[in-house]
Amino acid sequence: MSSNEIKYDVLTLGETMWRLSPPGRERLDTTRSLDVNVGGSESNVAIALARLGKRVAWWSRLPDNGPGRHVAATLRMHGVDVSGVCWDNGRLGTYFVEFGSPPRPTQVIYDRANSSASHMRPEDFDWSVIRHCRWLHLTGITPALSASCLETTRRAVHEARAANVPVSFDLNYRAKLWTPAQAAAVYDELAGCATVVIAAERDVRLMYGANCNAHDLHERWNGAVVVLTRSADGAIAYDGKTDVEAPGYPVQVVDRVGAGDAFDAGLLCALLDGKPLGEALRWGNAVAALKLTMQGDIAVIHRAEVEHLLAEGSSAIQR
Amino acid sequence: MSSNEIKYDVLTLGETMWRLSPPGRERLDTTRSLDVNVGGSESNVAIALARLGKRVAWWSRLPDNGPGRHVAATLRMHGVDVSGVCWDNGRLGTYFVEFGSPPRPTQVIYDRANSSASHMRPEDFDWSVIRHCRWLHLTGITPALSASCLETTRRAVHEARAANVPVSFDLNYRAKLWTPAQAAAVYDELAGCATVVIAAERDVRLMYGANCNAHDLHERWNGAVVVLTRSADGAIAYDGKTDVEAPGYPVQVVDRVGAGDAFDAGLLCALLDGKPLGEALRWGNAVAALKLTMQGDIAVIHRAEVEHLLAEGSSAIQR
Amino acid sequence: MSSNEIKYDVLTLGETMWRLSPPGRERLDTTRSLDVNVGGSESNVAIALARLGKRVAWWSRLPDNGPGRHVAATLRMHGVDVSGVCWDNGRLGTYFVEFGSPPRPTQVIYDRANSSASHMRPEDFDWSVIRHCRWLHLTGITPALSASCLETTRRAVHEARAANVPVSFDLNYRAKLWTPAQAAAVYDELAGCATVVIAAERDVRLMYGANCNAHDLHERWNGAVVVLTRSADGAIAYDGKTDVEAPGYPVQVVDRVGAGDAFDAGLLCALLDGKPLGEALRWGNAVAALKLTMQGDIAVIHRAEVEHLLAEGSSAIQR
Amino acid sequence: MSSNEIKYDVLTLGETMWRLSPPGRERLDTTRSLDVNVGGSESNVAIALARLGKRVAWWSRLPDNGPGRHVAATLRMHGVDVSGVCWDNGRLGTYFVEFGSPPRPTQVIYDRANSSASHMRPEDFDWSVIRHCRWLHLTGITPALSASCLETTRRAVHEARAANVPVSFDLNYRAKLWTPAQAAAVYDELAGCATVVIAAERDVRLMYGANCNAHDLHERWNGAVVVLTRSADGAIAYDGKTDVEAPGYPVQVVDRVGAGDAFDAGLLCALLDGKPLGEALRWGNAVAALKLTMQGDIAVIHRAEVEHLLAEGSSAIQR
Amino acid sequence: MSSNEIKYDVLTLGETMWRLSPPGRERLDTTRSLDVNVGGSESNVAIALARLGKRVAWWSRLPDNGPGRHVAATLRMHGVDVSGVCWDNGRLGTYFVEFGSPPRPTQVIYDRANSSASHMRPEDFDWSVIRHCRWLHLTGITPALSASCLETTRRAVHEARAANVPVSFDLNYRAKLWTPAQAAAVYDELAGCATVVIAAERDVRLMYGANCNAHDLHERWNGAVVVLTRSADGAIAYDGKTDVEAPGYPVQVVDRVGAGDAFDAGLLCALLDGKPLGEALRWGNAVAALKLTMQGDIAVIHRAEVEHLLAEGSSAIQR
Amino acid sequence: MSSNEIKYDVLTLGETMWRLSPPGRERLDTTRSLDVNVGGSESNVAIALARLGKRVAWWSRLPDNGPGRHVAATLRMHGVDVSGVCWDNGRLGTYFVEFGSPPRPTQVIYDRANSSASHMRPEDFDWSVIRHCRWLHLTGITPALSASCLETTRRAVHEARAANVPVSFDLNYRAKLWTPAQAAAVYDELAGCATVVIAAERDVRLMYGANCNAHDLHERWNGAVVVLTRSADGAIAYDGKTDVEAPGYPVQVVDRVGAGDAFDAGLLCALLDGKPLGEALRWGNAVAALKLTMQGDIAVIHRAEVEHLLAEGSSAIQR
Repeated sequence: MSSNEIKYDVLTLGETMWRLSPPGRERLDTTRSLDVNVGGSESNVAIALARLGKRVAWWSRLPDNGPGRHVAATLRMHGVDVSGVCWDNGRLGTYFVEFGSPPRPTQVIYDRANSSASHMRPEDFDWSVIRHCRWLHLTGITPALSASCLETTRRAVHEARAANVPVSFDLNYRAKLWTPAQAAAVYDELAGCATVVIAAERDVRLMYGANCNAHDLHERWNGAVVVLTRSADGAIAYDGKTDVEAPGYPVQVVDRVGAGDAFDAGLLCALLDGKPLGEALRWGNAVAALKLTMQGDIAVIHRAEVEHLLAEGSSAIQR
Repeated sequence: MSSNEIKYDVLTLGETMWRLSPPGRERLDTTRSLDVNVGGSESNVAIALARLGKRVAWWSRLPDNGPGRHVAATLRMHGVDVSGVCWDNGRLGTYFVEFGSPPRPTQVIYDRANSSASHMRPEDFDWSVIRHCRWLHLTGITPALSASCLETTRRAVHEARAANVPVSFDLNYRAKLWTPAQAAAVYDELAGCATVVIAAERDVRLMYGANCNAHDLHERWNGAVVVLTRSADGAIAYDGKTDVEAPGYPVQVVDRVGAGDAFDAGLLCALLDGKPLGEALRWGNAVAALKLTMQGDIAVIHRAEVEHLLAEGSSAIQR
Repeated sequence: MSSNEIKYDVLTLGETMWRLSPPGRERLDTTRSLDVNVGGSESNVAIALARLGKRVAWWSRLPDNGPGRHVAATLRMHGVDVSGVCWDNGRLGTYFVEFGSPPRPTQVIYDRANSSASHMRPEDFDWSVIRHCRWLHLTGITPALSASCLETTRRAVHEARAANVPVSFDLNYRAKLWTPAQAAAVYDELAGCATVVIAAERDVRLMYGANCNAHDLHERWNGAVVVLTRSADGAIAYDGKTDVEAPGYPVQVVDRVGAGDAFDAGLLCALLDGKPLGEALRWGNAVAALKLTMQGDIAVIHRAEVEHLLAEGSSAIQR
Repeated sequence: MSSNEIKYDVLTLGETMWRLSPPGRERLDTTRSLDVNVGGSESNVAIALARLGKRVAWWSRLPDNGPGRHVAATLRMHGVDVSGVCWDNGRLGTYFVEFGSPPRPTQVIYDRANSSASHMRPEDFDWSVIRHCRWLHLTGITPALSASCLETTRRAVHEARAANVPVSFDLNYRAKLWTPAQAAAVYDELAGCATVVIAAERDVRLMYGANCNAHDLHERWNGAVVVLTRSADGAIAYDGKTDVEAPGYPVQVVDRVGAGDAFDAGLLCALLDGKPLGEALRWGNAVAALKLTMQGDIAVIHRAEVEHLLAEGSSAIQR
Repeated sequence: MSSNEIKYDVLTLGETMWRLSPPGRERLDTTRSLDVNVGGSESNVAIALARLGKRVAWWSRLPDNGPGRHVAATLRMHGVDVSGVCWDNGRLGTYFVEFGSPPRPTQVIYDRANSSASHMRPEDFDWSVIRHCRWLHLTGITPALSASCLETTRRAVHEARAANVPVSFDLNYRAKLWTPAQAAAVYDELAGCATVVIAAERDVRLMYGANCNAHDLHERWNGAVVVLTRSADGAIAYDGKTDVEAPGYPVQVVDRVGAGDAFDAGLLCALLDGKPLGEALRWGNAVAALKLTMQGDIAVIHRAEVEHLLAEGSSAIQR
Repeated sequence: MSSNEIKYDVLTLGETMWRLSPPGRERLDTTRSLDVNVGGSESNVAIALARLGKRVAWWSRLPDNGPGRHVAATLRMHGVDVSGVCWDNGRLGTYFVEFGSPPRPTQVIYDRANSSASHMRPEDFDWSVIRHCRWLHLTGITPALSASCLETTRRAVHEARAANVPVSFDLNYRAKLWTPAQAAAVYDELAGCATVVIAAERDVRLMYGANCNAHDLHERWNGAVVVLTRSADGAIAYDGKTDVEAPGYPVQVVDRVGAGDAFDAGLLCALLDGKPLGEALRWGNAVAALKLTMQGDIAVIHRAEVEHLLAEGSSAIQR
């Protein structure tokens, strides 16, 4: 490969787990079977981007057993390159999701401690690949998993900067992994090196105060483009010059999990295609809306239907 | 059978397919199983009429294999006479339905080309039966399937006229089968011989212009009673004397496909029972509303529950 | 056991059946499988109370075969003591539920005649247990099942009074079992001996007139605390001194059946915990709301989530 | 209908039930769902005959509710005429089947007492139909259900005799319904009027002694052709002149229930087609063997595959 | 409780896990769902004993979340007392089972490291209960889980000896948990204190040499009754006086896992009932044979069917 | 890519279909759902080879709709490169499989006429890729699909010869596609250019006479290595010098379809690894045996378990 040849549009890395959930509205206490889905913030983004036509690689550690191979097969199925995965004899992290119905909340229980992915180390990966990538995507989950995961994330950011590869960073605050104070320090370090930072407005308020806005964060994070998502209310962004905003789509929700990752994928796809920030927000909203209509973390979308939704809006039946 | 003995209340003919759909909101791209339902506009009408107590015969061509026999068995199960079906060694038409959730549309993919039904010819059937029927029901789908299907539809209309058997004709425009211009010529020929013509108001506007109304169509089609359906908004009709209208029912929709056929069945049942046109529209709306609460093309209704809905309106639980 | 030692917080008795329902919105006419749930008003209350941490015993007659053992196993699974059940060689009552979608009603068909439970007699049980209980719960269904069931219910009330054990009585009027007039006589006898009487406001109006209110019933039933439930509109109560009221929760309903029993359990749990009547109504509403989000008659709840709902209200996702 | 016109090749009557069984090897004690099949000795025979191309009518009483309509729909699906069924407001008999695996036996639990079918009376049916039938088929189950069922069976035999319609009678001894002594008296009465009597050799030995053979029974039953079935070992028969015998097929059994009824259908089909007794036994064995490869009481066979099995024997795959 | 009152027939303790297996012969690499069963050697024994009518308590540590509560509910369902379980905030051990078909082996993957049960400590339990038990059952799995588990097992043995409660010990060698040498030392310590020691002959040969027999082990373990199981070939035993042997049953195996535990339960049940050792082996074989016909680790048996199998042998159908 | 760089170990091309089969032993006539599997002789080989660690590309035409994308996703999931597939707007070929049980045969019904794959043409593919491949695998199915498919197969063979890439050719005779005479002419043309020819001994006898053996075929096909498969009886081969033979494995068959393709993959994998022909036959037998234990056409194998089976033989459970 010549030194500046592009092999991947996007490289990302992180932990991906089995998501085990009782069918329908059944409870874990009494269930007889579990639906198996594959979920991880970064791999969700990777899959949606690959389905939108981008060349995407995902790096992680996986155990070389049935569950680990299942995760790799799922990513391959959707077109993501998993050749950089590091295989070991550990365990796959899992999480249980019990779907509620208002007023009963959907509940998530993690069983991810000591997973193979939590043992990710910088030396597991071939960093020379980064200079053949157009973009690096990271989230705030990975650095919270373990010290070696934090080191791996740091290394990724520094390699990208060294190779002039833009970095997107989604805060993805997880209260079960660390405290806001612990998270904030790491966020400042990593988001401060990023080109685009994406965060749920809800998390931003929790961590930086109810009055914190995109302008504040833009400054805090050394001029990064700041994108704030507001679930059904769409998204806003500030790039240092203009405030842009795009409303969300009315959705009859089937499964909420993974919608934020789908947003990221839509946003990054549009940015990689050279679209302006406002249109990228609309792409993010459209991909997120489609994901919400599907069971599982993964946005099983096609580029044509995203474009159709953006152009024509919703329709009831196509025949 | 004596020459004027009535054997069937309604005779109908057309193509019926296997409808294959992934369970729940699953996508075709990733599904591991398909739910099998049976659907065809005319057989949907036939089944609902049979369940409402009418003697109904359905004619078609079916392949003499598992899928073909499945279709015949399904019609028999609901009480439709399939003894006039012509069996061959062809293939059963199929269509795939992928259920969406707003803003993701439900998508229909047809795989019906070269089906056994598309080879229907006038000589496949014993036309002397028509004079022992009280009514003939046809749709605008059959003549679009092939030249021999068009010939068969024409023959049916002419035999009915010759025997003084009233004919209902539901336009059922299918954009994947022909253009509005192709369709319009055939519609004029067939609807012009019909006693009752049913059309979706949406299709009428597409084909005859946004201002076209029931009066225009009544005239265009030689005095046929014209019934226009408006989905959730109910139906209107004009019989040359009076404009009648009936509002639809509020429905929590389970599956939209087949609602128009259910409407036809309710309408025809009421007309055959000698009810006035306005009440026939209400019957059509009630049967359509019940169909919308069920998975599959078929209205698995009972006459008593239609009458209960018409008399008492909706109720949450009966125990 | 010393003479005043408490063994059970609550004792209850009644009929429990297999509830057989086609999956989804499928109809009994065409279904290929039936979901098996266990349902009975008193055992629903018993299970929810046991899950909330109370020691609960349930008495009944069950056939010593697969279906009968299934019922006992289900109660045991949720922590209810079934050691007092009387086993015979009869049949388990069943009922079929066909889930509708508006405007199609959910339909319940009973097949409970001549069930083992309908043969319950006073001599089937060891009445000395009652004085080791803190509470007795009965419903108006049991006395409607048979003469011997009526005798058993009477005996229970009299034993409780003799042992100074408070009694709750839920009218639970079932039109398929008896007429309002038949029911009213029995209600007066039994509710007149109860400490707390619970009734659906709808049933009260049917039986005692549209103007009948909690004050009237309090007087009619010799000073019992009267609790009237209003489905989504919550509940009201009168204890001879104060009128209390608690609004219901907005719920996205999954399955309605059993919500009234869940209300009873929440109410009784709070009363047994010494909470005031108003708070007991709120407990009843919370448990009922959670039950409505689950398939089946049974409220598969945990005390912590009831308390969370009462304290924090509804939330979409917990992770 | 002219007085000697044939409307049905075979008329039969009896009770048909819902057969409810846990999936796979699951037990009733712990199951969460039940597979629904339809089973009744006479309707099993009727269905297999209809599938083999005969015109068949089945008479019974059914409740006019979901389960009852389900039974009628299933018979119609397979081509059996159910227009002679008498509808009431009773209950459908059910039976539970728990599939074992050696050494655990498959277990059958009946819940059929007081079913609609058990209330069958002679006056429920239009006996004039019998003279338009080529054959009447009865079993020894119906007369065991109730006094009125016995009367109905008697009436059927007498009407057939009066109309010179041959009668087949399958003993089908059921130990849960009556004792051998009770059964024997009725068998002698009914089999003594039959043209063909079919019995499991096992039952014959139980009732008439280990040494009883087809010749003895031929004499006992006034010269009826006697057919004795021996499960996997095939069948033997004696018609007063010749002893014939046909070996069974080696089968990998999927579900045993209904194999005897399938044998009856094969036998009767061949006899109606004018085949000699030995070939009729072979037809019986072939249809029974095919039924054993299917879940459920019903032989979902096609005439072509019966003929293929008879002509070519077993094959592993056809493509 | 008076000091010598018996509360439980059998007390046991150990780890119980969720067993997650793809349906049918599906592989973990590609599965979309997992069947959930509950399995643990000691709880399997506990459940089978409870189903045979014994009063049984099971002690362990479980996480207070859905999976942990599911395990406790399953034991309660089958009649086991779980009131002595110690609840924490840990994780439930799980294991994956992928069912093969010869020549493809069934494969088991454990994910049990750091489970709640592995943190069991002597101080988690109220040891005064032991003197109210008739029997203590332990296995060689628990001491292999962790140092604190080993301490807990030791404590149990010592408490039982102090209270003169007989102890059964099943070696249950697990090669994934420790080496033969590690295991042997612990076995000698624990089996040397036991009344009855059960082992697979296969394991005995692996650990003590191909020539080791029951007499050698009887001596090695201070006079314990030694029972050796040989899968389909039944079991042998030596009590210091007599060699007894009982052949296994021919079985059409549905699921092998848990058969050894079922054997233990049959054996212990018979010994507790005062039956001689030879008959106890036969009980062990019968319960094991029935378990082999069921999916899952658990023997969902009834005492009557065990007795029927012992008395009558296998039968194909009971109706 | 430099001119002699190897990109793929194996290239193959052909038609892949959706295989739709009723669950269990259900029949097409009555089924309510279909299991979806993906099957095509060449893609089955490609998948098994990729799972064994080879770099494999598969070429075909697929419709750009849900079913077509499903096929591509399945191949990608198992590691096959589908970037050379030509997409169109046609239909995906399907076939129905109804699983029998002896004596009822498994039945296959094809609905593949006019599929996208049948329109494959030489100009759909970039033939320059062949010189970067180590091996080309073809079957006798593709040339039977259409004239353009025959042309494509011919072109592939000629390109491979020109690039000195060895070719394997599996006759795979399909009686529903052409007659033996039609097939034989094409076989001679293509097999005559192949390095390795694989055929079922059964087909060879059908086409070339009962006495035809591997030596005859070796000569007929210009010195190709001839491999004859005999199902359970293993395989034999002749390479012009030595006759080699390898016995099959005893298998408890779950699904027969695809076993021949699995054999091919095992054989080719071993040959590519430089193993001698006899060992390659053993590899073929081992992969075929594992495939037979799985539902579906695809051998979801791992290299380690093939090696384990070859080295250790069958084992019942691994834990």
